[in-house]
Amino acid sequence: MRIALAQINSTVGDLTGNAEKIASFAKRAEVYAAEVVVFPELAITGYPPEDLLLKPRFIADNIEFLQRIKKRIGNIIAIIGFVDKVKKDIFNSAAVIYQGKILGIYHKIHLPNYGVFDEKRYFKAGKGFSQYRVGGDRFGVLICEDVWEKEPVHILNQAGTQIIFNLNASPYHLGKLHAREEILKKRAKENKVCIGYVNLVGGQDELIFDGRSMIVDQKGKILCQAKAFEEDLLLCDLNPSPKICRKRVKGIVIARRATESPPQVKAVKAKTLSQEEEVYSALKLGLGDYVRKNHFKKVVIGLSGGIDSALTAAIAVDALGKENVAGIFMPSQFSSQESLEDSSRLAKNLGIEFKIISIEELFESYKKVLAPVFNNLPVDVAEENIQARIRGNLLMATSNKFGWLVLTTGNKSEYSCGYATLYGDMAGGFAVIKDVPKTLIFALAKYRNRISEKEVIPHRIITKEPTAELRPNQKDTDSLPPYNVLDRIITAYVEKHQSGEVITKKLSIPDTVTKVIRLIDRSEYKRRQAPPGIKITPLAFGKDWRMPITNGYKG
Amino acid sequence: MRIALAQINSTVGDLTGNAEKIASFAKRAEVYAAEVVVFPELAITGYPPEDLLLKPRFIADNIEFLQRIKKRIGNIIAIIGFVDKVKKDIFNSAAVIYQGKILGIYHKIHLPNYGVFDEKRYFKAGKGFSQYRVGGDRFGVLICEDVWEKEPVHILNQAGTQIIFNLNASPYHLGKLHAREEILKKRAKENKVCIGYVNLVGGQDELIFDGRSMIVDQKGKILCQAKAFEEDLLLCDLNPSPKICRKRVKGIVIARRATESPPQVKAVKAKTLSQEEEVYSALKLGLGDYVRKNHFKKVVIGLSGGIDSALTAAIAVDALGKENVAGIFMPSQFSSQESLEDSSRLAKNLGIEFKIISIEELFESYKKVLAPVFNNLPVDVAEENIQARIRGNLLMATSNKFGWLVLTTGNKSEYSCGYATLYGDMAGGFAVIKDVPKTLIFALAKYRNRISEKEVIPHRIITKEPTAELRPNQKDTDSLPPYNVLDRIITAYVEKHQSGEVITKKLSIPDTVTKVIRLIDRSEYKRRQAPPGIKITPLAFGKDWRMPITNGYKG
Repeated sequence: MRIALAQINSTVGDLTGNAEKIASFAKRAEVYAAEVVVFPELAITGYPPEDLLLKPRFIADNIEFLQRIKKRIGNIIAIIGFVDKVKKDIFNSAAVIYQGKILGIYHKIHLPNYGVFDEKRYFKAGKGFSQYRVGGDRFGVLICEDVWEKEPVHILNQAGTQIIFNLNASPYHLGKLHAREEILKKRAKENKVCIGYVNLVGGQDELIFDGRSMIVDQKGKILCQAKAFEEDLLLCDLNPSPKICRKRVKGIVIARRATESPPQVKAVKAKTLSQEEEVYSALKLGLGDYVRKNHFKKVVIGLSGGIDSALTAAIAVDALGKENVAGIFMPSQFSSQESLEDSSRLAKNLGIEFKIISIEELFESYKKVLAPVFNNLPVDVAEENIQARIRGNLLMATSNKFGWLVLTTGNKSEYSCGYATLYGDMAGGFAVIKDVPKTLIFALAKYRNRISEKEVIPHRIITKEPTAELRPNQKDTDSLPPYNVLDRIITAYVEKHQSGEVITKKLSIPDTVTKVIRLIDRSEYKRRQAPPGIKITPLAFGKDWRMPITNGYKG
Repeated sequence: MRIALAQINSTVGDLTGNAEKIASFAKRAEVYAAEVVVFPELAITGYPPEDLLLKPRFIADNIEFLQRIKKRIGNIIAIIGFVDKVKKDIFNSAAVIYQGKILGIYHKIHLPNYGVFDEKRYFKAGKGFSQYRVGGDRFGVLICEDVWEKEPVHILNQAGTQIIFNLNASPYHLGKLHAREEILKKRAKENKVCIGYVNLVGGQDELIFDGRSMIVDQKGKILCQAKAFEEDLLLCDLNPSPKICRKRVKGIVIARRATESPPQVKAVKAKTLSQEEEVYSALKLGLGDYVRKNHFKKVVIGLSGGIDSALTAAIAVDALGKENVAGIFMPSQFSSQESLEDSSRLAKNLGIEFKIISIEELFESYKKVLAPVFNNLPVDVAEENIQARIRGNLLMATSNKFGWLVLTTGNKSEYSCGYATLYGDMAGGFAVIKDVPKTLIFALAKYRNRISEKEVIPHRIITKEPTAELRPNQKDTDSLPPYNVLDRIITAYVEKHQSGEVITKKLSIPDTVTKVIRLIDRSEYKRRQAPPGIKITPLAFGKDWRMPITNGYKG
């Protein structure tokens, strides 16, 4: 049996576009003589559709589009993710379509409602299984979380299922692939079934779907794997050995069409990515999709001469092309000559439009109009933030004038500690490296230089000490511990929900731990107003972080 | 049986403060000779604790505090909401404590996971019921959603329960009280049980808990009701008639203590509030609690001479006192003389600190530095937004310098249509009237003037045509339909999830409906970066509105 996994990039809500894509991939799979083509979870609506699912009209439209696609499915069994409706309930579903007819519909049983997932907010859980028989081969359909639980695969196995098609919209984070592979191998071996795992690909607001669909044989071996971070059609010939049915489930027989034996396809396996390559690709896809799917063309970045804006600009150029990226350097009296040199060199290396707008005069004007109010109080963080907000205003002005999307350049270490100015450097539509800890920022910058013949990010940007340049001789380490220490505390406190006591036991620097935790807790109000950014860790500041702002707990 | 409903104002995460409050209310109830005192849902942690529930240490601490409170409970049965942990699972729970001992723990069965609720993200659903017998009287315990479902009250009724104590954290919106009363009357009548319904009171980020705890007798009559938007201890003597037990549930017998019959308490019933009084009180409580619980003292408001900032300032003065409110008027060349007169008169009426900072010179400086970039392109929204963002920067500067909280003044009609400048008038920590439609803003302003001897909000502010004053002779109606029409479309599209087609059928203005829907859809990215504000409608832009930004659906 030749199967095809259609790893497509759906856009949330774009029913027309998604339906078109599904029909065209189904056609391609048919051309390749596949007997079955499988699409990702909720391929018609895109994932996650969130509160669009509360609109009755949206549900009706998605069903209407399934009906339209149905008519375009010919001599191939197509398994397509959509939202089914039964009476007042909606289900995360997969339709099995053949020769213009819906043969069966499966309703997802295990609905994730943790981390970034809210499926119990919308869906009812399904109850039954069914099995499809094509000639002597039996397959079953499961959706995402269903294979992470033991029971569903087991029940289908008992019924003699040889192949399980598993439709997914599994969000990316660093290390996720390994977890997926382990569970699939385990389920396959436990039950001696093949699993065709198809995953969505693409960026949707803060989430990245990394693709890497795969087929695992009944011994738990990965036979083939589709590309990472790109659309792909994965083809594979399976010849599963017959199995005994010990406990029946509902069954549907599909007449096997008589075809000539197609020539065998060669199992492909996508290359393994290094950590840096994986994250860099994720960021590139996430930014590219956010820009394209929201109908922007060009982005603008405030270049400071520091590593965060430099990396953001490099990713933007790789995602959108150099002609679609503008950099603006906005010096004050505190900006160094090095910052000017480094930003302009970066812009030259990248080949992007580069502008310089001094904020000195504006900063003086603000101080002047505020003088009667500030009444000779000592200079403090207020004056620092004024500068950052002038820059935010200037960047947004170009955004409003030219329709550019402003990219913010804050990293996870800063967002954690609130080391960023609300409405200042936090102003912008998309925060590309928001979930990247500073230590990984350095690694990514070096990686980007490594894969290029000539220097992209000037060496000095990577080696110099980080500074916000908002007051004379400022260094990040004036306010924060060294980034390697800071990032360990953030991982423990934010991503693992460990208490200060537990972290101190590991790090033996109680004062630093307490200080950082206090900073993290106190910055919640800032994060709540931050732009969305790309999730690359197991826990990002986004849908999977729902902390109260008003919070009397001292963690 | 004398029962006391302790309608307290817990603070999320403040375990120490909440425990102290619980112990002191229990003591007060004992002094009033109550046999039972009932606290709201999750009284120990505050509601909703959100992702604090993912911290193992937080769960352990909340149990530790329950143990401490336990020791302070004497001759009174105290029913206290907390988070129970059994193996790896946590439960939304109520402990029944008497004479220093926990007699039983109930686990909430029906976990809401819609609207603002995410309880399935955290809690396992409970499975069993239990009944407590004090002398001849039997009572049972249920938590919030459990009484909205038919089954739990029915099961307790079958077991002969005469009184049900129902612990709640029921968020306020306009009209919610009526819904609550109807369901309680229905359940009471259906099952011939008394229901002691205790609700939390206070503000938590965007949510308001309005209190109005009540006791409903077995005929479905509301015997008494506690205060709205204030802490209260509601006392009531109940003498429920004995009932037959048809189907047992787990039972616990509590020895009735021998006391002298206390003198009867008089059933009190809080006064019914008008719509304006109710919403105004909710906003006052929400702002007051946000400020106090986040340890601010003083707020600052940009006064424009318009009704939104005027109403916000009036609420702030009522919530925090005039000495804790500052108003800043920031005129440009487009500001009218009337705006200056009206803002200064408002400030005078309110007795608040009032400052004027002109933005003219700053605006000219921005235009000058941007001239080489803007390159003689026509003046457009970019120049309008620069002005709004200068004001945002100035207000935030006072916030940073003096530790004031900036209140934003946008209303729901504006937030819906994106008729507000991100990082400009949207800059601030708390958006008091964010969920109030413009038509209701007018009603609230008139209400505030009505309840005062002398004028508070100058008459002209209420009667003049709304304008943003960002270009010459600008009126809101240049860009938006009249507010009475706009608000109807917003209610239908946002709060009821109706489609454009359905709305057009009712309003017969297809072009306006399409235009407004497009504005609402396109402004999602702005709302995502908006400050939190107080929910007063059935669906606010907050936890109960989770729309994707990247969204190809045309509603």
